[in-house]
Amino acid sequence: MFGKLGKRTTLLVQEGIKVRRLLGRCRKLMSERGEAAGASLARETFELYDELDRNHQEAFFRALLRDFSPDPKKVLGAAQRYLETQSFESLIRLSEIAEPPRQELLRRLNRLPGGTGQIVRMRERLLDALKGNPELAAVDWDFHHLLSSWFNPGFLKVVRVDWQTPAALLEKIIQHEAVHEIQGWNDLHRRLERDRRCFAFFHPTLPEEPLIFVEVALVEDLPDAILPLIDIQSNSGDPARAGVAVFYSISNCQPGLRGVSLGNFLIKQVVDVLSAEFPRLKRFCTLSPVPGFAAWLSALEHETVARQSPNLLRAVLAVAKELGPDPGKAAADPAAAMKRRDPVKNELMALCASYLVRPGAGDAVTPDPVARFHLNNGARLERLNWGADLSKKGLRQSLGMMVNYVYERRAIERNHERFISGQVTASRQVRSLALGE
Amino acid sequence: MFGKLGKRTTLLVQEGIKVRRLLGRCRKLMSERGEAAGASLARETFELYDELDRNHQEAFFRALLRDFSPDPKKVLGAAQRYLETQSFESLIRLSEIAEPPRQELLRRLNRLPGGTGQIVRMRERLLDALKGNPELAAVDWDFHHLLSSWFNPGFLKVVRVDWQTPAALLEKIIQHEAVHEIQGWNDLHRRLERDRRCFAFFHPTLPEEPLIFVEVALVEDLPDAILPLIDIQSNSGDPARAGVAVFYSISNCQPGLRGVSLGNFLIKQVVDVLSAEFPRLKRFCTLSPVPGFAAWLSALEHETVARQSPNLLRAVLAVAKELGPDPGKAAADPAAAMKRRDPVKNELMALCASYLVRPGAGDAVTPDPVARFHLNNGARLERLNWGADLSKKGLRQSLGMMVNYVYERRAIERNHERFISGQVTASRQVRSLALGE
Amino acid sequence: MFGKLGKRTTLLVQEGIKVRRLLGRCRKLMSERGEAAGASLARETFELYDELDRNHQEAFFRALLRDFSPDPKKVLGAAQRYLETQSFESLIRLSEIAEPPRQELLRRLNRLPGGTGQIVRMRERLLDALKGNPELAAVDWDFHHLLSSWFNPGFLKVVRVDWQTPAALLEKIIQHEAVHEIQGWNDLHRRLERDRRCFAFFHPTLPEEPLIFVEVALVEDLPDAILPLIDIQSNSGDPARAGVAVFYSISNCQPGLRGVSLGNFLIKQVVDVLSAEFPRLKRFCTLSPVPGFAAWLSALEHETVARQSPNLLRAVLAVAKELGPDPGKAAADPAAAMKRRDPVKNELMALCASYLVRPGAGDAVTPDPVARFHLNNGARLERLNWGADLSKKGLRQSLGMMVNYVYERRAIERNHERFISGQVTASRQVRSLALGE
Amino acid sequence: MFGKLGKRTTLLVQEGIKVRRLLGRCRKLMSERGEAAGASLARETFELYDELDRNHQEAFFRALLRDFSPDPKKVLGAAQRYLETQSFESLIRLSEIAEPPRQELLRRLNRLPGGTGQIVRMRERLLDALKGNPELAAVDWDFHHLLSSWFNPGFLKVVRVDWQTPAALLEKIIQHEAVHEIQGWNDLHRRLERDRRCFAFFHPTLPEEPLIFVEVALVEDLPDAILPLIDIQSNSGDPARAGVAVFYSISNCQPGLRGVSLGNFLIKQVVDVLSAEFPRLKRFCTLSPVPGFAAWLSALEHETVARQSPNLLRAVLAVAKELGPDPGKAAADPAAAMKRRDPVKNELMALCASYLVRPGAGDAVTPDPVARFHLNNGARLERLNWGADLSKKGLRQSLGMMVNYVYERRAIERNHERFISGQVTASRQVRSLALGE
Repeated sequence: MFGKLGKRTTLLVQEGIKVRRLLGRCRKLMSERGEAAGASLARETFELYDELDRNHQEAFFRALLRDFSPDPKKVLGAAQRYLETQSFESLIRLSEIAEPPRQELLRRLNRLPGGTGQIVRMRERLLDALKGNPELAAVDWDFHHLLSSWFNPGFLKVVRVDWQTPAALLEKIIQHEAVHEIQGWNDLHRRLERDRRCFAFFHPTLPEEPLIFVEVALVEDLPDAILPLIDIQSNSGDPARAGVAVFYSISNCQPGLRGVSLGNFLIKQVVDVLSAEFPRLKRFCTLSPVPGFAAWLSALEHETVARQSPNLLRAVLAVAKELGPDPGKAAADPAAAMKRRDPVKNELMALCASYLVRPGAGDAVTPDPVARFHLNNGARLERLNWGADLSKKGLRQSLGMMVNYVYERRAIERNHERFISGQVTASRQVRSLALGE
Repeated sequence: MFGKLGKRTTLLVQEGIKVRRLLGRCRKLMSERGEAAGASLARETFELYDELDRNHQEAFFRALLRDFSPDPKKVLGAAQRYLETQSFESLIRLSEIAEPPRQELLRRLNRLPGGTGQIVRMRERLLDALKGNPELAAVDWDFHHLLSSWFNPGFLKVVRVDWQTPAALLEKIIQHEAVHEIQGWNDLHRRLERDRRCFAFFHPTLPEEPLIFVEVALVEDLPDAILPLIDIQSNSGDPARAGVAVFYSISNCQPGLRGVSLGNFLIKQVVDVLSAEFPRLKRFCTLSPVPGFAAWLSALEHETVARQSPNLLRAVLAVAKELGPDPGKAAADPAAAMKRRDPVKNELMALCASYLVRPGAGDAVTPDPVARFHLNNGARLERLNWGADLSKKGLRQSLGMMVNYVYERRAIERNHERFISGQVTASRQVRSLALGE
Repeated sequence: MFGKLGKRTTLLVQEGIKVRRLLGRCRKLMSERGEAAGASLARETFELYDELDRNHQEAFFRALLRDFSPDPKKVLGAAQRYLETQSFESLIRLSEIAEPPRQELLRRLNRLPGGTGQIVRMRERLLDALKGNPELAAVDWDFHHLLSSWFNPGFLKVVRVDWQTPAALLEKIIQHEAVHEIQGWNDLHRRLERDRRCFAFFHPTLPEEPLIFVEVALVEDLPDAILPLIDIQSNSGDPARAGVAVFYSISNCQPGLRGVSLGNFLIKQVVDVLSAEFPRLKRFCTLSPVPGFAAWLSALEHETVARQSPNLLRAVLAVAKELGPDPGKAAADPAAAMKRRDPVKNELMALCASYLVRPGAGDAVTPDPVARFHLNNGARLERLNWGADLSKKGLRQSLGMMVNYVYERRAIERNHERFISGQVTASRQVRSLALGE
Repeated sequence: MFGKLGKRTTLLVQEGIKVRRLLGRCRKLMSERGEAAGASLARETFELYDELDRNHQEAFFRALLRDFSPDPKKVLGAAQRYLETQSFESLIRLSEIAEPPRQELLRRLNRLPGGTGQIVRMRERLLDALKGNPELAAVDWDFHHLLSSWFNPGFLKVVRVDWQTPAALLEKIIQHEAVHEIQGWNDLHRRLERDRRCFAFFHPTLPEEPLIFVEVALVEDLPDAILPLIDIQSNSGDPARAGVAVFYSISNCQPGLRGVSLGNFLIKQVVDVLSAEFPRLKRFCTLSPVPGFAAWLSALEHETVARQSPNLLRAVLAVAKELGPDPGKAAADPAAAMKRRDPVKNELMALCASYLVRPGAGDAVTPDPVARFHLNNGARLERLNWGADLSKKGLRQSLGMMVNYVYERRAIERNHERFISGQVTASRQVRSLALGE
């Protein structure tokens, strides 16, 4: 079977003896025998997998598709019987037949102490293999399905990371910070002082591996620039007086958990934790980049823009010229770059608001990935901040702009629903900035 | 749909407004909106469920069957498409369509901190409801499917229970001991001294609830009676000199986890723990009852027995007479009861061996539940012990006999396989006892 | 030297070879050599001591007096030099010469891990030996001096004891409760429920040995009887609504720490802990026995009493008759006993108030040990409670009466000072009860 | 009194009102009243002290000498009475009278949670004040006396410091390392890998403050140079194969505990810990500097040296010339410096051995502080290593030489005793190097 998906002949050659031995272990683990000797069989399975090179790992994943998918004919039989009888027995039978057997394989591998971590690493590799083997999406569906069930937030623990945290874990925070790079231990120390917070999600079977972490600044007002939040030299303020908690960075640590919802739950749990500790906190917001803005701008058709207003076209052309053939160059003098853009500031902010709120006929909702994440979580787009991030990356991707998304507990459900139905919840200010409002 | 399974009309009346509100919450939790406001929706769902009386809880379970099962027509469509195309897209689509939506409902409820415990309690009630509603087996299949995945041994922790353990936990051990009742704190204290061990499985989300625990005695030789192992007055020996670890009691604490494999994994992990701590340990065995023996004996056809040997019939009749109309009575004087049976001791042991090893044409393998548990785990039936348990229950169910099952690491896989294929692994001694060997 | 204290000749015979070996170890431990090999020498010293029987232990203590006291002549020389020169060198020299060398011996023994516990046990024995050897008071002075320094409250930790506490520790609480006996684990469990508290002091080197513990009831009003506080059947109330914290029992666990101030510090730290947890608590009081009352009453001269009032004499005689030759007997029917006393209730309460407030010409302050403890701690004598303790002991020692002492933070210093200067701080009510006010 | 020690008139002026208020608190704390309100009085005392500037702190220490010393006349009286009666009462009285009252003051301050740490800091300041006020040695005697009793090794805990240790503590290790400076977090990380160990002593009342720590390298052979032990780039070896544990750095963290014996006890406890973990370890040694060597060499009388051998004089002169007026200069090129000394290597090693083993008529034992520390601990001087430390400090103080001291459990007591009696235990090799052997 699976003649159209697998590339059988090639595989048989490619696989080699190692993959075949590994598949043999998997089949044994699935058998009755595996029930009793599960631990040692699972251990051997992982060991054999670890010995494979990348090509053979791909071959193994393809074999998981070919050999551990449900039997189409049996599925059809069970489906027909279910429709005919609508009996509970036929439903149970259908459930047994239709689930891909590789799910049971993964569940049995997961029984081994340490198995969960191995499966996460295996999926990291699988996601990689997916690029050249789109049909492996069916295998990945099963990995994602089970990992979502195992890494559900009810099983996870929010842990505060501070200067009392073991160095080994702090080292991982430094290494995984993906938004605003941590420049060594002094930088980290500043980010863990009393007016800063860092929280991470942990799974009980991976006590030394943070899954995702968020960095928070406790400040007086809605922030309009990133620098004061990550300035190593800044004095630490009194968190009890803070009115605003700013989620200024959120980073995933486990590529093998891609697509498993973690950030959404972490943010909401941290809101609860901080609310309990600091009753004076009135607002929870982010200070986020607009990473897709510059690319979107470059792709705009000049004609369409010109029809709206000649000033807009001027702004688009100015940016195009500047980013030009070597986008990295401009950042040498960020202040100068911003100054050059000053004349078209209004136009650029209007364009950015449009990008976020209603980007054009084709796109139902904003194409910005960060915006989609927070809006889907139920946040509101509150404010655009000009010249808020003068880093190389910030200037290049977001043209120096940053956005505050606000999390308001009572509004979360409603905002999320509006987003689902294709609308962006934005403040009046942002809305009035956007073109054609 | 589900006309044949559900009893639609009755339900609609029975359910009442509360069940309908609860089902409304469930649907909302399953919707997109539930994604953002999951925690509060899940909390409300559990609260509404907790307010239901038993009848309405049953109505809710029936609604889970009726309203949260896969759509038969869509399933058939997906199955046909899968067979035709055998494409990865069609397989993914099938997986999405064929899984009962109540599984996703349970997964979303499980995201709430404390949700796992609530689901376990819900299933305890569901198992109860199953008696009068056999069609709920399809709902229970989903509960069992997910609980097995969440309570897999890779997520569980073996914890040693001793006199340093919090009293609140020890109280639960006293309460849940199901094999040899613990008579208060002094009895418990004796069972936790240095030559005894107690280990329990815990799930990370239920840190105060033992799932299952096993009690172990570290002694010199294979034990032939239970009393010395649970005698409060006995002196505690030096565990470092013990040659045998006896698993003399294993008790489940969570009825809602029935059918989820725990005992098998616990025993094997405890074998590992004890082997590491006491290198001199040579044997791991049980001292187990034969709870189905007396009932099996009573059901034997006298004619068949007589054909084998008149002595056997004498034994069977003697027991029948004794247990007679009031089986509890005989236990008033256990010693006397055993004395009366002495003349037919050989015959009764032969019958017991037969019961365990080859009970008759009809039964493929032994019908004894304890024997099935240990043999399926890969243990070997080592020895029958006459007069080993003179307690009321022991005399009535097992006619005072107990069995040693031996766990030998190297043989576990082989023994389990033989059991699967319908054979009982037994020592030469037991084998020679059994009739017709 | 020490001819007058020690009984040299007898000792030399008594001591035997074992004591001499032990003393040899002590001397070596004190020498320079002991500096380097301290741990093993200290271990040997304790082992040799443990092997001694009671007589030889006494001999060892006497040798500590005889051989490890300061040299009188050298002391005199250092004192003269200090008076003459008043130089810092002469003062240091005096400090070195005048301190009994056994203090250094104890300090070196204390360096051994576990040494502190051994020294506490050694002193328990020493206090015993003191009865027949009054001169050992000089040795005990040094033990007490060092133990007070080592068991100072800055080193101790207040630990809450509850149902999550290890059973091994709870067992010690049951065993050491000295005021209102704990009748098994159910009784203990009631005393650890949410409207009760138990706190113990621990020393870092004795993590498994409570030093002293106090039991607290959180109730609505100032209690007037002990039974409701220790009733196993009583329902537990909501501690958040309690207005009064009652210290109804305080028990020492280490006889070897007699005279080391612990109870005073524990009560005050617990007041702080409870104040922080329950802001609604308005009062901290005790419900205490008057253990010396009956004995004091019996010793009153009838003539003196009669001169004050004939009614008083009647009361005194009634009690005398009742307690009579067999004081235990009356308690058979506590209710009846109290009923019999009813006619003289007023007189007995007046006498009890007098006993506590101004017992007579001879006694400067109350001779009641419990009263002295709390008054010295800075409490106020608030109220006498008739028929508050109908237990055998309560009826016999306190004639069924109990007292509330109130701890008020602002008044503690002043009350203590008044007590030091010979005055008892009592409420107007108690004061008006007392004779001759 | 104390007219000769104190400088009364000046003091009275200097002290000012603050010191007098502080002394008032101290007297109150010593009074009966202090018994009941100890905690708040002690807190106030520390607060008042903390507010003083350095001059007034000195004035306070002088007042501790003047006002809290024993009364000379009373001491004399008690001493006379003790000599006359030799009664236990007179001995107790003497103990009470002769102890400086400031000891009781410190004990009462120590009762406050956190008091111990405050007293340690107070002594740090006192040691400073001692330089200009030698008479304060009498006050310091009391501080040292009590701190030695409170920081005895029986109360301390050996804690392993590794990469799982909280960053806050690791930061203190970096900061306090006094022998071979730690160059940031990477350097520290290397020193905590599996073939390195770091252990610190902690006091229960100062859980966040290491008192002293030792760094250990687990290597194959007796090391002859420091660089391989602290090389960040070096690969970490398998500690289970190590034959030698090298104590290559030991650093005190609390200046206020000067003179309190800690290093000796720490080394011996770490030897026990490592012996238990690594049964294959055969040797425990140090790699230590000879910090007094260069200075001793410079001070040698040339005439005397010349009389021993002209070569020796040549060596001495060469070193003198090199270290010359600017000792720091030579270190610019360590390799060159060592090369220049090569011709006189034998002579310099002979001189160094002499310095350590028998430095001259005047000095009873070696004047080298590091040598005195280890020899007094019972170590043996094993080997001199030429060119072992080419750091600036190593070249200047020790002329690049380092020494291995060996700790052998069985020999410790004997070696210590020999050192006490004026002899240095050295290997035959070192002994033969020393001049005139």
